[in-house]
Amino acid sequence: MHWPVEAATEVLPLPEVNQRRLAQDLRMLAHIGASPGGGINRLAFTAEEREAHSYVAARMREAGLTVRGDAIGNTFGCRPGGREGLPAIVLGSHLDSIYEGGQFDGTVGVVGALEAVRALNEQNIATLHPIIAVAFAAEEGARFGASNLGSRALVGDLPQEELRRLHDGNGTSVAVAIQQLGFPLKEIPTCRWDSRQVGAFVELHIEQSAGLETLRKPVGIVDAIGAATRLRINLIGRPDHSGATSMSLRRDALAAAAEIVLNVERIARETAGRNTVATVGKLNVKPGVITVVPGEVEMDIDIRDIDADMKDIATSAMEAMVHEVARRRGIQERIELLTHQLPSTLAMWTREAIRGVCQEMGVDYRVLPSGAGHDARVMADLAPAAMILVRNKSGISHSPAEWVEMSDIVLGVQVLTNTVLKLDDALAQRRGEGKHP
Amino acid sequence: MHWPVEAATEVLPLPEVNQRRLAQDLRMLAHIGASPGGGINRLAFTAEEREAHSYVAARMREAGLTVRGDAIGNTFGCRPGGREGLPAIVLGSHLDSIYEGGQFDGTVGVVGALEAVRALNEQNIATLHPIIAVAFAAEEGARFGASNLGSRALVGDLPQEELRRLHDGNGTSVAVAIQQLGFPLKEIPTCRWDSRQVGAFVELHIEQSAGLETLRKPVGIVDAIGAATRLRINLIGRPDHSGATSMSLRRDALAAAAEIVLNVERIARETAGRNTVATVGKLNVKPGVITVVPGEVEMDIDIRDIDADMKDIATSAMEAMVHEVARRRGIQERIELLTHQLPSTLAMWTREAIRGVCQEMGVDYRVLPSGAGHDARVMADLAPAAMILVRNKSGISHSPAEWVEMSDIVLGVQVLTNTVLKLDDALAQRRGEGKHP
Repeated sequence: MHWPVEAATEVLPLPEVNQRRLAQDLRMLAHIGASPGGGINRLAFTAEEREAHSYVAARMREAGLTVRGDAIGNTFGCRPGGREGLPAIVLGSHLDSIYEGGQFDGTVGVVGALEAVRALNEQNIATLHPIIAVAFAAEEGARFGASNLGSRALVGDLPQEELRRLHDGNGTSVAVAIQQLGFPLKEIPTCRWDSRQVGAFVELHIEQSAGLETLRKPVGIVDAIGAATRLRINLIGRPDHSGATSMSLRRDALAAAAEIVLNVERIARETAGRNTVATVGKLNVKPGVITVVPGEVEMDIDIRDIDADMKDIATSAMEAMVHEVARRRGIQERIELLTHQLPSTLAMWTREAIRGVCQEMGVDYRVLPSGAGHDARVMADLAPAAMILVRNKSGISHSPAEWVEMSDIVLGVQVLTNTVLKLDDALAQRRGEGKHP
Repeated sequence: MHWPVEAATEVLPLPEVNQRRLAQDLRMLAHIGASPGGGINRLAFTAEEREAHSYVAARMREAGLTVRGDAIGNTFGCRPGGREGLPAIVLGSHLDSIYEGGQFDGTVGVVGALEAVRALNEQNIATLHPIIAVAFAAEEGARFGASNLGSRALVGDLPQEELRRLHDGNGTSVAVAIQQLGFPLKEIPTCRWDSRQVGAFVELHIEQSAGLETLRKPVGIVDAIGAATRLRINLIGRPDHSGATSMSLRRDALAAAAEIVLNVERIARETAGRNTVATVGKLNVKPGVITVVPGEVEMDIDIRDIDADMKDIATSAMEAMVHEVARRRGIQERIELLTHQLPSTLAMWTREAIRGVCQEMGVDYRVLPSGAGHDARVMADLAPAAMILVRNKSGISHSPAEWVEMSDIVLGVQVLTNTVLKLDDALAQRRGEGKHP
């Protein structure tokens, strides 16, 4: 196969990725939960998400991996290492999507992990450490407002209380949704892994913005993963008649919400750090009738940064702003903290492993932070974690318009595969052993 | 019975209203379409609206009126006059509601018209002109976005094309909704009345704001009825990932919508006339997910004034503003004109008839415009029209919290009843006849 990078200097010959098989897996998964409009609908803890896990589990079995699932719905495929008792190199991402999401988000990392193991198998390349390909459940926060439920169960950070508290738009709790799929709720604590079981975690993922495409780099190496603080704002005004109520007598919940939307944008742009982003993605108006001044608004604010302090500064500024707008307009406000995640700086040595692979392969890369949250952020609590980003030709994600070139995916999977070998050596060296033969 | 006004000077002794019967009718109607939250849901062209019409038709028959309906669902109860061939005095309002509306809006005017006729009957008071009590269909614009469909059919201003074009939120057109209720769509042109059939129209209605309550006046006499221009705005931005997309690269449809909401408020307050009001009552965000920068917004603007020129100035300013916001933010915009009504100044002589009644009864009143639209605005195209407003203790309408005191309703019905007698004389005088014996 040919690298799309012309100026390759010292090309690693190892190991070949089967592009046709990779494309076939992506295509098959893109049919699961596809809507007529071309969007993917594999929401967390739905039959569609389970179908995708079944597909991947079947491919893992075909590849000779030992497959198992856990009580939160994560799926694992294990390839033994050359020596007993060593920690695993874990690779993977998620299979769930938002409403009308894209076909590459998450999926590329799961199929990529599977393909990396298949490539090693076919070329009879053994590793010292076991390799575990993982498909996480419920990474996206779209259904329940909280993200990374699968990986959080694995690191032991998913209290039962939260499973009962979080609800989707139909009032179904995570606990109920899990049980409806036949998973044993009370066994979720057993999902937790011991950190000694994992030597390193690597997530391959598409970039969810236009950064690499703008820079014309096919690969990104993540140095830090941003995290979200999420606020739910409820505003109660008064539902007056739109014709009979003079402007000065109104307590318009939507006008208050509009001020908040613009101030969220302003604070993210001006007050907060260079990498702070903030979004009002969801806003519902009640009663939502053309002839009634809006009496109630519920809106969610998503605040992200790779710098925890900057995120806290922005969050405080927004809370103060909401109170000020509400007070000035005679609106009752309530602010609920939905999510408060910590950003993660990824381990230097795992990042250096990827950098080494890119340099040896002659692949042009850029080290950059990820504003989007990922399972790697959660897994970094358990073990040194790393992330390889694949260039996103469309520059957008969380949309049916998301598009990634197959040549970039293949390149990403190749970097992932070589990174596994590099980490296999690096882990041994870190234990004081020599390069493995 | 006793007037709640202490300082009554020259009290008209005529004719007594049955408060118990009036209250009973209002209570019975308040059960039709009532939700657990206390709101009334008798949307235009629904089974609930028809049930209310059936209730009123039964009471009309009990009162000895000749009852008939027309092809759009209006219900009429006719009491003959003393002389053949004279135009009718028409009294009434509507029985439909918005989603979760109040129990007095419209209903008070229908029950009031019925009670006025019953009071005249019981006291054997004859009139020269026939009296027609009417319950209009589909006054509220909540379901289909267009108001006064019943009265517009009566004045011949409801083209078939509009019945097919207007849709509710489920995609059901007015034409289909009418036919599903068993009404003959193609006979709607037969709903039209000849203006020579009507001598005057009087609508009793609750005030839909706090004006009279603030002034401590129990009755209002309307001099002009405002009208609405309604715009539907569609904004198309780009649905980006909320974590991965920097603030400067966004095309956030909701941020654009928020600017529009605040500018609509500002234009109504500052640029336009003293009586201009404007509202964004409905705003829907797509995809409406916490982790996605909003890609699309659909919002409706309702602009009202009693001055047609001021309303047009405000509308033009808003259209220009929408284009400016969209252009600056890189958003695609579309503006659709949903409704363009003309305000109406009511006839001086009908207004003077009500003023005379109030003065003779010693009832404290205020002449004032109505910002809310009413069937009287439409009926004014057919015949001289008048409106009596009843004080609204709650100061709000289009809400389950709408509340009107029974004593104020009784007073309003009494003023209405005396106004009928006053108009009966005035119509004769305007034809050059003397005061009727």
